[in-house]
Amino acid sequence: MPELITSRQNEIIKRAARLSSAADFRREQGLFLVEGARLCRDAAQSGVCIRTLFYTAQASEKYTEYLGEIQRTAQEIYIVEPHVAALLSDTKTPQGVFCVCQMRAGSDKLENIEPGFHYLALENIQDPANLGAVLRTAEALGIGGVILGGSCCDVYSPKVLRASMGAVFRLPFYLQADLVSAIGLFNKRGFVTLAAVPDSAAQKITSVDFQKPTVLFVGNEGNGLTAAVIAACSGSVTIPMLGRAESLNASASAAILMWEMMREKSGGA
Amino acid sequence: MPELITSRQNEIIKRAARLSSAADFRREQGLFLVEGARLCRDAAQSGVCIRTLFYTAQASEKYTEYLGEIQRTAQEIYIVEPHVAALLSDTKTPQGVFCVCQMRAGSDKLENIEPGFHYLALENIQDPANLGAVLRTAEALGIGGVILGGSCCDVYSPKVLRASMGAVFRLPFYLQADLVSAIGLFNKRGFVTLAAVPDSAAQKITSVDFQKPTVLFVGNEGNGLTAAVIAACSGSVTIPMLGRAESLNASASAAILMWEMMREKSGGA
Repeated sequence: MPELITSRQNEIIKRAARLSSAADFRREQGLFLVEGARLCRDAAQSGVCIRTLFYTAQASEKYTEYLGEIQRTAQEIYIVEPHVAALLSDTKTPQGVFCVCQMRAGSDKLENIEPGFHYLALENIQDPANLGAVLRTAEALGIGGVILGGSCCDVYSPKVLRASMGAVFRLPFYLQADLVSAIGLFNKRGFVTLAAVPDSAAQKITSVDFQKPTVLFVGNEGNGLTAAVIAACSGSVTIPMLGRAESLNASASAAILMWEMMREKSGGA
Repeated sequence: MPELITSRQNEIIKRAARLSSAADFRREQGLFLVEGARLCRDAAQSGVCIRTLFYTAQASEKYTEYLGEIQRTAQEIYIVEPHVAALLSDTKTPQGVFCVCQMRAGSDKLENIEPGFHYLALENIQDPANLGAVLRTAEALGIGGVILGGSCCDVYSPKVLRASMGAVFRLPFYLQADLVSAIGLFNKRGFVTLAAVPDSAAQKITSVDFQKPTVLFVGNEGNGLTAAVIAACSGSVTIPMLGRAESLNASASAAILMWEMMREKSGGA
């Protein structure tokens, strides 16, 4: 029977709560907190190393099947009282299931990027729901991975994890504050680098030949890509639109851009 | 100087609050409530008939420019105290600007649909954020309009209005509980009717000839389209995907499907 934690002052709990709220503590520890029965099960199924599993007595009745899968790989297990679980939760109605997970080693170094795939590079994406949605779509479409450039929000934040529906556990991603120097590396390695811009004079995304491995750069919703990134890329592309182009939001435009990049590989006519 | 409303018991306020919370009251009155300086300004700019404008003294200082545009078309104007504004608000941090607006007359009758355009038909979309996002993308891509079939959530709900970024004010839409009988009407009028399905045996969306006016049917996130709708359509289409197809969410898949439908019209190669 796992140990019961009844106090919000418990050091293990305080540490897990801090992993949920503080990006710098996550980076320092190389750990992050996952919330929710299904998302924790996804982490286990995706081969994420689960250091600690916390669950409430209520959750053990409601999510027996999910918990069974998580328990098989979790290194430590604790039962927590609901008022303790509330401290770990980022949601209004917590399910009472949480895992402390280990970040993937080495996945954040751009030098490790695999050749031969198409990649998406994001600059300064601030909205966690947008970032999560883009990662989810990238995984669905079979993108090789995502480069997070500039000051994107942390992929390991509770909101991004949730919106990504677990894509964060499986999709390769690379943190790179300085995107301009990354473009130099991509060009050297034979990637085509394309900046997505809302400019009808740019090349239409539909006329791009995506035979060569390509990195597509997408900026944040309000400001788009920085001028330095646009200038460093080998070309600029745009989505031709008949309607009110300013209405296309960041995750929808990223979906269309990624789709065009993968269209032929996916067997599109 | 507009009249000041200081009481939450004021009948005008109670009625406006009910327009925000109750879809049946909205339908009965033919009115809806819009919240936020920018969204209310969008309504005014889009030619929506604004019956009543409410704003707080704080808002009049912060959103002077937006309010100026709204005031020019509003039929009645009231200043409200912050605790009264809170009653009208659907958000955590209200801006203190609200409009009671009139629904467009006749736009909900399928008989009024304009020929020669491509349309999107949604069945049983339950999530307001998803519905708003889809309407927003439809407007950006120049879709002729959206048919809301089965039991979709109300387009005039505060969450849909907000997520649509005002597309509800401009995009034609049609309410049609019985989609199967609507398909009969579309077929008679010369539209191609296509059901989007997650079935790799269906025709690839990339190989569809969209020369003829088409209505594309998209189901809800959990269950997809009903069997009756799929059977009634003239064909079924699917998005070919290399990755984890189950990861594509409703608004991203609707974006890709609409994009493919409009791709050639938009000048795609």
